[in-house]
Amino acid sequence: MKSICAVLGVEAAGIKEGKYGLALIKASGTAAAVFTKNIFAAAPVILMKERMENGVLDGIIVNSGNANVYTGEQGLKDTERMAEIAAEAFKTTPERVGVASTGVIGRFLDTGIIEDQCRRISGNITSDEDAEIQAAKAIMTTDLAEKHALVQKPGFSVAGIAKGSGMIAPNMGTMLGFLYTDAEIPADELKTLLQKAVRRSFNRVVVDGDTSTNDCVFITATGKKGKADPDEFYEALEEVCINLAKMIAKDGEGATKFIEVEVTGTKTEEDAEIIAKTVVGSPLVKTAVYGEDPNWGRIIAAAGRAGVSFDPLEMTISISNGEETVVLARKGENLADIKVNPENLAAAKSLMKGKTVIFKLSLESGSEKATAFGCDFTEKYVEINGKYTT
Amino acid sequence: MKSICAVLGVEAAGIKEGKYGLALIKASGTAAAVFTKNIFAAAPVILMKERMENGVLDGIIVNSGNANVYTGEQGLKDTERMAEIAAEAFKTTPERVGVASTGVIGRFLDTGIIEDQCRRISGNITSDEDAEIQAAKAIMTTDLAEKHALVQKPGFSVAGIAKGSGMIAPNMGTMLGFLYTDAEIPADELKTLLQKAVRRSFNRVVVDGDTSTNDCVFITATGKKGKADPDEFYEALEEVCINLAKMIAKDGEGATKFIEVEVTGTKTEEDAEIIAKTVVGSPLVKTAVYGEDPNWGRIIAAAGRAGVSFDPLEMTISISNGEETVVLARKGENLADIKVNPENLAAAKSLMKGKTVIFKLSLESGSEKATAFGCDFTEKYVEINGKYTT
Repeated sequence: MKSICAVLGVEAAGIKEGKYGLALIKASGTAAAVFTKNIFAAAPVILMKERMENGVLDGIIVNSGNANVYTGEQGLKDTERMAEIAAEAFKTTPERVGVASTGVIGRFLDTGIIEDQCRRISGNITSDEDAEIQAAKAIMTTDLAEKHALVQKPGFSVAGIAKGSGMIAPNMGTMLGFLYTDAEIPADELKTLLQKAVRRSFNRVVVDGDTSTNDCVFITATGKKGKADPDEFYEALEEVCINLAKMIAKDGEGATKFIEVEVTGTKTEEDAEIIAKTVVGSPLVKTAVYGEDPNWGRIIAAAGRAGVSFDPLEMTISISNGEETVVLARKGENLADIKVNPENLAAAKSLMKGKTVIFKLSLESGSEKATAFGCDFTEKYVEINGKYTT
Repeated sequence: MKSICAVLGVEAAGIKEGKYGLALIKASGTAAAVFTKNIFAAAPVILMKERMENGVLDGIIVNSGNANVYTGEQGLKDTERMAEIAAEAFKTTPERVGVASTGVIGRFLDTGIIEDQCRRISGNITSDEDAEIQAAKAIMTTDLAEKHALVQKPGFSVAGIAKGSGMIAPNMGTMLGFLYTDAEIPADELKTLLQKAVRRSFNRVVVDGDTSTNDCVFITATGKKGKADPDEFYEALEEVCINLAKMIAKDGEGATKFIEVEVTGTKTEEDAEIIAKTVVGSPLVKTAVYGEDPNWGRIIAAAGRAGVSFDPLEMTISISNGEETVVLARKGENLADIKVNPENLAAAKSLMKGKTVIFKLSLESGSEKATAFGCDFTEKYVEINGKYTT
């Protein structure tokens, strides 16, 4: 198994018919979730913010094809109905069901379709590789690839599935993540750890800078394997989240290359995070990566407008493909000038030919760090998002 | 005359040879300037921030082709040298000369080229239409069009030239503006009014969200026509700045359409400004405009993540081409649904066929407003910025 069904106590099923998909994930345990901060939060986000206060779930229902956003009272009623439909399949009460949606904004949900799909797949809920694959496929919209992650430790496992290919895809939306562990963790602790792991993973992915109205990440701890070492558990959780976050970045709309920006030597983690996200989100950096151009002028321009104070003459910028590294500029000196260091510039260019481009910015003003994830910007992104018509 | 030479006391000259251009603008008077907040500020920005404290200028020298950024002590010496070269042409001292640069980051300036070009054009400094055109052309990099603006009032004139087509263009940079008036205004008042006008114009242009290391706007008041009514003067100044800002947005790299986002009914002007800039800068909104798709889901998603608190169910979104207006969504109701209101959706689409697309967001939570300017996002932007190689 490659993800959630490897966690003891987790069963799944899924169906995708045209643009309408439905996933059911059955797992009882303590639970926590984090949600989008967008003011136009989807109906399921509004309801779940409230219900997740209880800290327990018996399962999650997710539909794709309709985001249930800007749908008012009717949207909330439809979300409650989804919880009821799933509660029947999970043999529990609606209050113990997580609900998430992704798809078009501004249309009322057809709960008839959801009810029908649920009835047809509820008999298939099981714990095998096919089940987790069906669930991962059911929640995809413009995603090109399923997203599974699994970390297995001696005493427990952490796993998750996710979807997302733009922070908002063409008229569709959303980054969704569903995480599971068989370790036993109280709900409040789970929430704290989830917030920290999400901050260091999903919240550091920039595809286009847009934030969905439906973003959410749920975690359920079935406890089937008993207590785990808290540090070891957090490490595994962060690894799962970062792996899924990288998959989302790699699956960015129209992307041909994955970009990682690693900022070190800042006073706070937040400083490093802001700079890393600003650089990885810069359209000019993204197009330079697409063009395989080690144009570090664009990197310093982005880093310099991030709003963090640092000494520009202390910074070192390097480029790497994960194996070799070339220094582009150091402490005010251009080390990849076409006239002065042409061999260094050529070496930097050749590092950009692969699928992964890593920029390292060392600031020398502290000992904190952060890494952000993104992808290049291509004509295909414009085509996907510009040629699509409502 | 179409811009600066219509202002009494202003003379100009310019030359553009391949990628190297030089403009000289001679005008004595009180003066003020605003500069980029990028931490990697160009050498001329660093020097001018200091020298503009004096509040007087006898002229400005601008080179294009090299931004003089990340050039350390040598860069500052080269900027001082540019001021000396121009001071000779203007028959003044270097301390009374404004200096600005635009072009490639990370290379030392060739002051020999600048000295040579200055010597050849200093005899041409004069006050006619050809002179202002030569100056406007000399400062262009990836700009496709010269940018002139002029407002003439009974007692005075305000005019300016500008350049800029990405906040950072391919490896080149920068938005530069040079404004003139023959009204008599003390330097400190000039600075206050300039800051306000720049905030409402140039600072509300979003082409790609990147902020140049060289951005600057200078204003000189020659005083040749005596005192002006302060309100009337400010109004003319704002009009000149907004006209130039719109020209920069229209000349955005690869742009086919001009976008205006007007946000009204906020508690503060800043709230309206943040929302307007977030919407006009959203890659998904920009690609939707390119695709002529009135996809207001993308607009609310952008408005909702701007970080301003408001009641989403009170908002009205309309689209306009400057003549006709169609309401897309109002107070939680989708008025352009493909099933429910297909004629309204069709009307909205047809409004997007022209060169100007205006989105109006009315928030009903106060009486403040702001307008931001931008352009659509096309494959051409990616081509210009991705295919360019250092």
